[in-house]
Amino acid sequence: MTTLSPGPGKASRRATMNDVARLAGVSIKTVSRVVNNEPAVHPETAERVLAAIDELGFRRNLGARNLRRGSTTGTIGLVVEDVGNPFYSELTRAAEKVATAFGRHVLSGSSEEDSDRERELALEFCARRVDGLLIVPAGTQHGYLLPEMHAGTPVVFVDRPAGDIAADTVLVDNLGGTVEAVAHLARQGHRRIAFLGDRPDIYTAAERLRGYREGCARAGVRFDERLAILRPPTRQSVADAVARLLAGPDPATAIIAGNNRVTVHLLRALAHVTPRPAVVGFDDFELADLLDPPVTVVAHDVSRLGSAAAELLFARINGDASAPRKVVLPVHLVPRGSGEVAP
Amino acid sequence: MTTLSPGPGKASRRATMNDVARLAGVSIKTVSRVVNNEPAVHPETAERVLAAIDELGFRRNLGARNLRRGSTTGTIGLVVEDVGNPFYSELTRAAEKVATAFGRHVLSGSSEEDSDRERELALEFCARRVDGLLIVPAGTQHGYLLPEMHAGTPVVFVDRPAGDIAADTVLVDNLGGTVEAVAHLARQGHRRIAFLGDRPDIYTAAERLRGYREGCARAGVRFDERLAILRPPTRQSVADAVARLLAGPDPATAIIAGNNRVTVHLLRALAHVTPRPAVVGFDDFELADLLDPPVTVVAHDVSRLGSAAAELLFARINGDASAPRKVVLPVHLVPRGSGEVAP
Repeated sequence: MTTLSPGPGKASRRATMNDVARLAGVSIKTVSRVVNNEPAVHPETAERVLAAIDELGFRRNLGARNLRRGSTTGTIGLVVEDVGNPFYSELTRAAEKVATAFGRHVLSGSSEEDSDRERELALEFCARRVDGLLIVPAGTQHGYLLPEMHAGTPVVFVDRPAGDIAADTVLVDNLGGTVEAVAHLARQGHRRIAFLGDRPDIYTAAERLRGYREGCARAGVRFDERLAILRPPTRQSVADAVARLLAGPDPATAIIAGNNRVTVHLLRALAHVTPRPAVVGFDDFELADLLDPPVTVVAHDVSRLGSAAAELLFARINGDASAPRKVVLPVHLVPRGSGEVAP
Repeated sequence: MTTLSPGPGKASRRATMNDVARLAGVSIKTVSRVVNNEPAVHPETAERVLAAIDELGFRRNLGARNLRRGSTTGTIGLVVEDVGNPFYSELTRAAEKVATAFGRHVLSGSSEEDSDRERELALEFCARRVDGLLIVPAGTQHGYLLPEMHAGTPVVFVDRPAGDIAADTVLVDNLGGTVEAVAHLARQGHRRIAFLGDRPDIYTAAERLRGYREGCARAGVRFDERLAILRPPTRQSVADAVARLLAGPDPATAIIAGNNRVTVHLLRALAHVTPRPAVVGFDDFELADLLDPPVTVVAHDVSRLGSAAAELLFARINGDASAPRKVVLPVHLVPRGSGEVAP
């Protein structure tokens, strides 16, 4: 009854308690009782009020009301790696939309892939008494959050799991994504398929590497460790890796880029290379379809990742005390051209 | 003396009061006195302490100290149009970096180009007692902020000015940008130059339209109002506008896109059009150089826009009470190919 899902866009910002009372045919006092979970409301009446709230999208005002009552600070905390990265800005926007529907604001910070900074941000947000935390973890040790979680601040991990505690987690199917990327390239006849990933201590990079190995095994492609290069993606590091992969008597004929940052640097490194290896990028990105050749990607719904995590967080904030949940969102290969070339 | 500028990256998060004392060759008590603007410190000693703070980037701890002393809530508010738009995510990241250097966190929200929502976000952030506000205004009436400003919450307007109050503002040279775009296209021989802008009630769109008219006048190109189309940029609206501009006996041979969103939709609309009109986009964007043809843009430094605004805000937070300032950042044309074609 207290697990609310977000209402329809604009409407959720306009409806007042009056509107709800009118639609449900009850007094404002009754709406107030239902909203505050007070007793002495007939179940059928309560149902009617909740249906009206659903229809009108009344959450924002619920949030404001809670705030006035002092039971919430009206904010949730969000720790991402870098809000300037389009992947995280899309995720942030999606989380913000859900927060708005629930009458909350977002306190956000970028960890810069530094576990100390992640911890610092998370604990400072808790010290500011956020109602809940969404974290894209940089580190792998999260015992520091247990006191906060026990004290009643729900935490949902996004895109990467918690390191050493049981906690709600929303991920994408990293392993399945690179398995599929390898299978796709193998179908075009490639046998020298490389994987260019982010730092190997980053969960998504490690999982995608695992999927790459698994994909090679399944496709009957020999795994060659020289073709798997994982490092922080900068323009220079990717250019160096590409030079290495394309040199020698048995060069790579296809490259899988481990995330959107790697893909952008890879495309830049390949701009004047002929013959050009096949490319599949993990993560879709704007303009991928307008490049020449258009870029084949392992796509997933970043907005959905952010909103699913935020919805789970608000379910917890609103009293859902069931066991920690792990949600894995699907990925799918989008063939556009760069990955559909023979060796 | 209290107007601090951000220190060098990582260092700003690590230095302690001890480090400052050691470097300045003074006691911790003296550092504390300087930091808290207490009297009884010799000016030369204070200078030495401030120089050490500058060198070590001690601000974060200054912020933490202020927080402990209760004189700050440790947050600033940021209202943008849509954090999912790469322009605003880059701006947000830059503001966040400066805030971090000053020991603050960022409470952020997206107005969705809705002045009611802008006001709602700004006032709710003030109700949460942010130390200052950065606003990309959606509306043109900001009298609602005067009570907050008089009560001591500094406000800096970013990318667009306040509508009807005197306030700090950081802008880019919108007018100069489209004047230059028209001049550039006229130099390639174009006489049918179109302007495709965002909603005309948005300041930047209106200014860029003004620059377009001015540019036509200066370049001796006849201004034809049918070639200036301003509307909310969606894939469909831009496609319709392009169809209109390229139809008839005297079509446009060049199109100026009024912002990064318009540019992306324009490129999509032109993907299969031949002959392709010349294109100049306002705002640079990732991958512009890798498209075919590479996209000529009116570029400016979005990070600088965000950091200049945040630095001005922290100068105000730290006591700078001089008259409201208007900062206009330069733009420059980056010729890459799409704008260097003859009619």
